[in-house]
Amino acid sequence: MSVTAAKGFTAAGVAAGIKESGAPDLALVVNQGPRRAAAGVFTSNRVKAAPVVWSEQVLKGGAVTAVVLNSGGANACTGPLGFQDTHATAERVAEALGHSAGEVAVASTGLIGLRLPMDKLLPGVDKAVAELSAHGGEKAAIAIRTTDTVHKTAVAEGAGWTVGGMAKGAGMLAPGLATMLVVLTTDADVEAPALDAALRAATRTTFDRIDSDGCMSTNDTVLLLSSGASGVVPEPDAFAEAVRTVCADLARQLIGDAEGASKDIRIEVTGAATEDEAVEVGRSIARNNLLKCAIHGEDPNWGRVLSAIGTTSATFDPDQLDVAINGVWVCRKGSFGEDRALVDMRYREVRITAHLAAGDATAVIWTNDLTADYVHENSAYSS
Amino acid sequence: MSVTAAKGFTAAGVAAGIKESGAPDLALVVNQGPRRAAAGVFTSNRVKAAPVVWSEQVLKGGAVTAVVLNSGGANACTGPLGFQDTHATAERVAEALGHSAGEVAVASTGLIGLRLPMDKLLPGVDKAVAELSAHGGEKAAIAIRTTDTVHKTAVAEGAGWTVGGMAKGAGMLAPGLATMLVVLTTDADVEAPALDAALRAATRTTFDRIDSDGCMSTNDTVLLLSSGASGVVPEPDAFAEAVRTVCADLARQLIGDAEGASKDIRIEVTGAATEDEAVEVGRSIARNNLLKCAIHGEDPNWGRVLSAIGTTSATFDPDQLDVAINGVWVCRKGSFGEDRALVDMRYREVRITAHLAAGDATAVIWTNDLTADYVHENSAYSS
Repeated sequence: MSVTAAKGFTAAGVAAGIKESGAPDLALVVNQGPRRAAAGVFTSNRVKAAPVVWSEQVLKGGAVTAVVLNSGGANACTGPLGFQDTHATAERVAEALGHSAGEVAVASTGLIGLRLPMDKLLPGVDKAVAELSAHGGEKAAIAIRTTDTVHKTAVAEGAGWTVGGMAKGAGMLAPGLATMLVVLTTDADVEAPALDAALRAATRTTFDRIDSDGCMSTNDTVLLLSSGASGVVPEPDAFAEAVRTVCADLARQLIGDAEGASKDIRIEVTGAATEDEAVEVGRSIARNNLLKCAIHGEDPNWGRVLSAIGTTSATFDPDQLDVAINGVWVCRKGSFGEDRALVDMRYREVRITAHLAAGDATAVIWTNDLTADYVHENSAYSS
Repeated sequence: MSVTAAKGFTAAGVAAGIKESGAPDLALVVNQGPRRAAAGVFTSNRVKAAPVVWSEQVLKGGAVTAVVLNSGGANACTGPLGFQDTHATAERVAEALGHSAGEVAVASTGLIGLRLPMDKLLPGVDKAVAELSAHGGEKAAIAIRTTDTVHKTAVAEGAGWTVGGMAKGAGMLAPGLATMLVVLTTDADVEAPALDAALRAATRTTFDRIDSDGCMSTNDTVLLLSSGASGVVPEPDAFAEAVRTVCADLARQLIGDAEGASKDIRIEVTGAATEDEAVEVGRSIARNNLLKCAIHGEDPNWGRVLSAIGTTSATFDPDQLDVAINGVWVCRKGSFGEDRALVDMRYREVRITAHLAAGDATAVIWTNDLTADYVHENSAYSS
């Protein structure tokens, strides 16, 4: 279903030859209207890939006709020529569709520091345009994969309208060098400012709260396009919730497919003074390599959780910290609590709860374990 | 030579039975005077082990007669009873030596969240006291090992005086859950405030600039003790330099023995607007798991260096960044530079230079690669 679940969109995924393997590597999503409103959220990394610089500019207009995405090359750190390549890609799409390049967003993922093979990419664009279909969402989702083992799609239905989307990657919106690219589409009739508000609210508590390896990509891009093809103006809260549902679904899939991971770890911080502090503590726990190794070894090593909390500036008294792993409160009042032998860690999902006893705010951060497979995957070849 | 290289110190290292393996696990360093001045630097983790809380208090007096150190248990997150255990350990040492417990520093390393086996530790103290020797420094260095594959000692000679020391661990002064414990001794006649100044200046550019895995321990402790037994009041700059030399030597040994590491990585940041910004950038590079995996795979993946720099708040223009790996400027002006195939990465030491083109400040941070062995070591058992 993917990006073509909502009416008014066509998509395609083709093998342009950017990847030496011959696997699909170019996707195109086209908004057939009648509305062409769009919103976008991009990496906060200060080293931004050319397509991010380009697309941020496009999104300022609040209208997107098409999104062209490639795997097989990030087009980051490629200088002015790399930016020209992004521009040329958008122009090729615009020419083929008879629209302005200023309404064509571009997203890329792959190795940093290499020029894209434009002699393959541009003919690939033509091929994708020729294959555009109202059933092309699945193929588009497949074409944006890099180290992904599965393609990721999600759909939520509203009252007469639909939100659908696709994602690739294994990381966080800001972090995640395994670049995260997401395109969401809807046939609900929503203007750009409302799309922007719904998208930012959704990403803040979904993509922004998954943290695979703490590494921030140069290319992360999340786009939301509205065709208005349903003719229905949605109730704002219901629309926001649908966007959030699709984002949460895709975010969960990203963590589940994180590079080399064997455990999905849900970190819930409770009793925080503020939501920001809850997020800070959750992220610190999520980024502790020693804890991530322990979880991989099915070792409920709560001392590493406390060590991670101790590095933050959040409000707490070390003697009042409680930590549960899979429901067993192994740490009470900053010291040992229930018997750690009671913790059952055989399953893929691991739940860590850290209670700060400093207020009522909470946050959930998702991460994964650190494994030898992660090391192999990220050391055996350039990615 | 270790902590007994300087005159006026005795030491011992014994197997008290804290470690189930029967390996040496308790060390004692005694300052025989005539001076008993001391300075200390401790973890900045807000979750502090009982011995850190105790020793910080002891050091406020500026005098230390003895340091008792144990491996086999961190005595962290053990509540009031854990603090009583530390207190009882100091008392036992004080009684045996006929001094005040208020001048006995305690340091512990090992698993967090378990009480120490005091029925073994206290008789171990008696055993260590009985074995104190002016040649005991080596044995003391051996007894504080946990996952260390070698024991670490260093010595620097001044004009009629000596600075020596021992260390255990593989991490950073602040970070490094593989707790870092360091005891330095000198027979130079130096009062506590001058010791403190020399120690803080030295740790700031040595232990504070190694970052094995970004994890901050609850137990890190660095102590400097002066016996004054040489009778020589050193020239302040020469003394500070000797302390720095010993710290730098030990810090380099710690990185060289980091858990599972196959590469030692020297990150030099140049052209920074301030030294703090140079350190921030260096640390961000040092903590990038994807880069650390790439280095393990001998892949000069400079894009990951730029991604790491891009996450900092340091002053720089992305289009002016230069990066060299082992002397080859693979990135020039934020884009590809010299051929990455020219980078020879066969050797253990890897040098990364990041030039920010924003000023004249520099800093060097040491880290190591991320390997499957690190994962195995930290997931196969609790540590």
